[in-house]
Amino acid sequence: MPPVVIDLNADLAESFGHWELGDDEALLPLVTSANVACGFHAGDPRVIRRACAGAARHGVAIGAQVSYRDLAGFGRRFIDVPPAELTDDVLYQLAAVDGLARVEGSAVRYVKPHGALYNAIVHHEEQAAAVVAAVRAYDPALAVLGLPGSAWLRLAAEAGLRTVPEAFADRAYTPEATLVPRRRSGAVLHDAEAIAERALRLARGEEIEASDGSPLRVDAASLCVHGDTPGAVAIARAVRGRLSAGGVTVRAFTG
Amino acid sequence: MPPVVIDLNADLAESFGHWELGDDEALLPLVTSANVACGFHAGDPRVIRRACAGAARHGVAIGAQVSYRDLAGFGRRFIDVPPAELTDDVLYQLAAVDGLARVEGSAVRYVKPHGALYNAIVHHEEQAAAVVAAVRAYDPALAVLGLPGSAWLRLAAEAGLRTVPEAFADRAYTPEATLVPRRRSGAVLHDAEAIAERALRLARGEEIEASDGSPLRVDAASLCVHGDTPGAVAIARAVRGRLSAGGVTVRAFTG
Amino acid sequence: MPPVVIDLNADLAESFGHWELGDDEALLPLVTSANVACGFHAGDPRVIRRACAGAARHGVAIGAQVSYRDLAGFGRRFIDVPPAELTDDVLYQLAAVDGLARVEGSAVRYVKPHGALYNAIVHHEEQAAAVVAAVRAYDPALAVLGLPGSAWLRLAAEAGLRTVPEAFADRAYTPEATLVPRRRSGAVLHDAEAIAERALRLARGEEIEASDGSPLRVDAASLCVHGDTPGAVAIARAVRGRLSAGGVTVRAFTG
Amino acid sequence: MPPVVIDLNADLAESFGHWELGDDEALLPLVTSANVACGFHAGDPRVIRRACAGAARHGVAIGAQVSYRDLAGFGRRFIDVPPAELTDDVLYQLAAVDGLARVEGSAVRYVKPHGALYNAIVHHEEQAAAVVAAVRAYDPALAVLGLPGSAWLRLAAEAGLRTVPEAFADRAYTPEATLVPRRRSGAVLHDAEAIAERALRLARGEEIEASDGSPLRVDAASLCVHGDTPGAVAIARAVRGRLSAGGVTVRAFTG
Repeated sequence: MPPVVIDLNADLAESFGHWELGDDEALLPLVTSANVACGFHAGDPRVIRRACAGAARHGVAIGAQVSYRDLAGFGRRFIDVPPAELTDDVLYQLAAVDGLARVEGSAVRYVKPHGALYNAIVHHEEQAAAVVAAVRAYDPALAVLGLPGSAWLRLAAEAGLRTVPEAFADRAYTPEATLVPRRRSGAVLHDAEAIAERALRLARGEEIEASDGSPLRVDAASLCVHGDTPGAVAIARAVRGRLSAGGVTVRAFTG
Repeated sequence: MPPVVIDLNADLAESFGHWELGDDEALLPLVTSANVACGFHAGDPRVIRRACAGAARHGVAIGAQVSYRDLAGFGRRFIDVPPAELTDDVLYQLAAVDGLARVEGSAVRYVKPHGALYNAIVHHEEQAAAVVAAVRAYDPALAVLGLPGSAWLRLAAEAGLRTVPEAFADRAYTPEATLVPRRRSGAVLHDAEAIAERALRLARGEEIEASDGSPLRVDAASLCVHGDTPGAVAIARAVRGRLSAGGVTVRAFTG
Repeated sequence: MPPVVIDLNADLAESFGHWELGDDEALLPLVTSANVACGFHAGDPRVIRRACAGAARHGVAIGAQVSYRDLAGFGRRFIDVPPAELTDDVLYQLAAVDGLARVEGSAVRYVKPHGALYNAIVHHEEQAAAVVAAVRAYDPALAVLGLPGSAWLRLAAEAGLRTVPEAFADRAYTPEATLVPRRRSGAVLHDAEAIAERALRLARGEEIEASDGSPLRVDAASLCVHGDTPGAVAIARAVRGRLSAGGVTVRAFTG
Repeated sequence: MPPVVIDLNADLAESFGHWELGDDEALLPLVTSANVACGFHAGDPRVIRRACAGAARHGVAIGAQVSYRDLAGFGRRFIDVPPAELTDDVLYQLAAVDGLARVEGSAVRYVKPHGALYNAIVHHEEQAAAVVAAVRAYDPALAVLGLPGSAWLRLAAEAGLRTVPEAFADRAYTPEATLVPRRRSGAVLHDAEAIAERALRLARGEEIEASDGSPLRVDAASLCVHGDTPGAVAIARAVRGRLSAGGVTVRAFTG
């Protein structure tokens, strides 16, 4: 039997100027892939560079977490950007973070869109294609990280890019394997033990329980953990510990 | 006798979103080096990419025209940015434009700071050193363009970077070879013929007349021309024509 | 028979920093209501103040042209702003422009949303209600300007605000009195004479020809003219001249 | 003997979008004047409105904490803004916050510049005059808060504005009554007891000890307290408690 391997990804560099968000230093020893904010929803050049340096030091793979241009909304509001502009916005962000990563001895290895853009390109074909076009134009060797079944992953695969499906150990799933919307009660799990247990099942490819109690299998090569609150870091630590205890090899998918 | 060679540089990509500034298409056939705005004082990703594509098509060398972060002031207001932050701001801009240039089959070959930053680092040692540090960290093969005698060129040379001094054919010079401040009468020349004549003398290394009438020799490997008004484009055309007629080879210094 | 009266409104203060757009000085003698940009899609404080001063000098009524926060997109991209945030964004813009108008001896008299927000609240009930809430909270004596039949005007009327329907003399109308989308051929009229003639018919409440040739009556107390190009200013001048020649009194609806 | 009266002021509304800074709810019961960020260095419309609502509810006077336009630098970097532009930038901010305050049943009563602008106009006559001009143009009944001996207070007084000198209980003073720069050791006091004791002496107009041990009297009608960390809130609480225990009436200077 081959060893079970999984990637753990988390958002980094979400501070901006005087405002601090997230605990990059605490997360870096726990994860294997860092989704680095690119300056359009968060992340000033100083914070981005520091996150890239930390990732390089910890052997963590760097991804560009590209976003709509929306500091005031933290990239969480859909913007109806024309596709050609979106392609160029993504290229700009991708190149900026790649440059800072290279200065720190690493490089961007994958792209994971952020917030509203992440959600939009599950279904929005034009915007999904626009982001795919940017990744492909920049470097066809980059992987893309996203939701299984999304237009984003489908179009990326069609364009010849490596696609990496991810799962969320702290989110409830519908029987159709989509995420239960955050506003519904029970949509987000808070118990570290339960989340860690779920992470282990997801990593092993075992069934989890959907929101209606039915068994569900989610295809995932990476698990997303959060780090924007002290509680979130503790959960990430529990997940990492449980995976190791369960014999799962935690390793970057780019590895 | 070796042929006389000079570079012509101009600012490009100074539009932003719906606002248009400058006539990039008219300038590209006239110049040999394009100072491409990087998004901090002007230049959205779409405009930058288009300028890079045009430069690549015309065989024009691409420079990153890095700036303070100041869209509202067009980068023309000194900002007392701490040096370490300035280094990272420059790296971010440089990397972003380089990435867009590479997507268009070219690459950033030099750095020319913009506006208030250009003026500040004539004397401001800490900020000059901060920009030098960014260029060196990004790629020590990049050249730097600036004012002869500036801290910027001196520190860049000390750091092992190739330095390219530039002159302004449309500006009056003091006997000490510094520019007469714009607010003084006679600081800016407007007559295309006179400017073209001066450009030819500067290119040939001949003396020009300083503001007090004394003869002055200005060391320059590049001449800066402007293109933000129809009149400016006409002057650039006159300069280019006169240089060619005068037997000067107009060629990018990176060539 | 009572005299025929109409208002002419146009967008002002659409420059930003070093970027100039529109010819406010040319428009002010032609219009009776100025939709002043508020800084979120265009309009820095200096430009806004100058536009308010000009409006005050010419006896032109000042409206706040509130927008999504989107300098890079000039407010022309729909943003899915949560309604409560949108209300506060509108209040902030409205108050800022009103303050600058008061300093210049005038005051904001009405609100006309800009670009994508204008289009969104034709149908988007939540965002329409959010803008109405802002206007009402700020000053229930303010009028609101917009498209006849829009959710925006309907909800504003229900909230007790004075509503002012506007028409576009340079746009083709469907038989249902909605605007033919810009991307369709024939959507925008360019002939100054034809536009001026149409303006006169609209002002008089006479039928115009819809895109299918059928007769159409559009209810309008204000006509929108443009001024962002030299051609647009010429058209505005033709419209104003034709209305006067046709015996129509051009007067601000706030008058 | 007349009762001893002092004002306590603190910065509020320093969050922006998703980023939180400061604990406005904890500070509001402790202070009598709230310096509300205006959106140029911090403070989105939602946060500003909430701070104004809280201030109105607690009977706390609202001041506009105007700033350079510098979200990335939190307004802490000097910007060489031309005075006429600075006047308009200040007017815009002042009007925006005043409008939100009025919607919440209160109004802006004073102006206290923020960060680098606060420091600049201690000596920078042109920028100080520019801010004074804005306040005077907006409403000559507004008070201005600042450092005793600053150009800002002097020019404001000459312009007929009410000036309110403030002191810092947690900062070391030179024998000349200027603040010891933050980078020097001992510049900032951290012990809540010592700060509270100093606050009481300052409120009573008693001598404090300057950095060289000499006695110093600081003229202050308001004391500035901080609230951007849990520790800062605790200190503010200690100061308020000590003032009350010491028989000092804590009351807004606008009262």
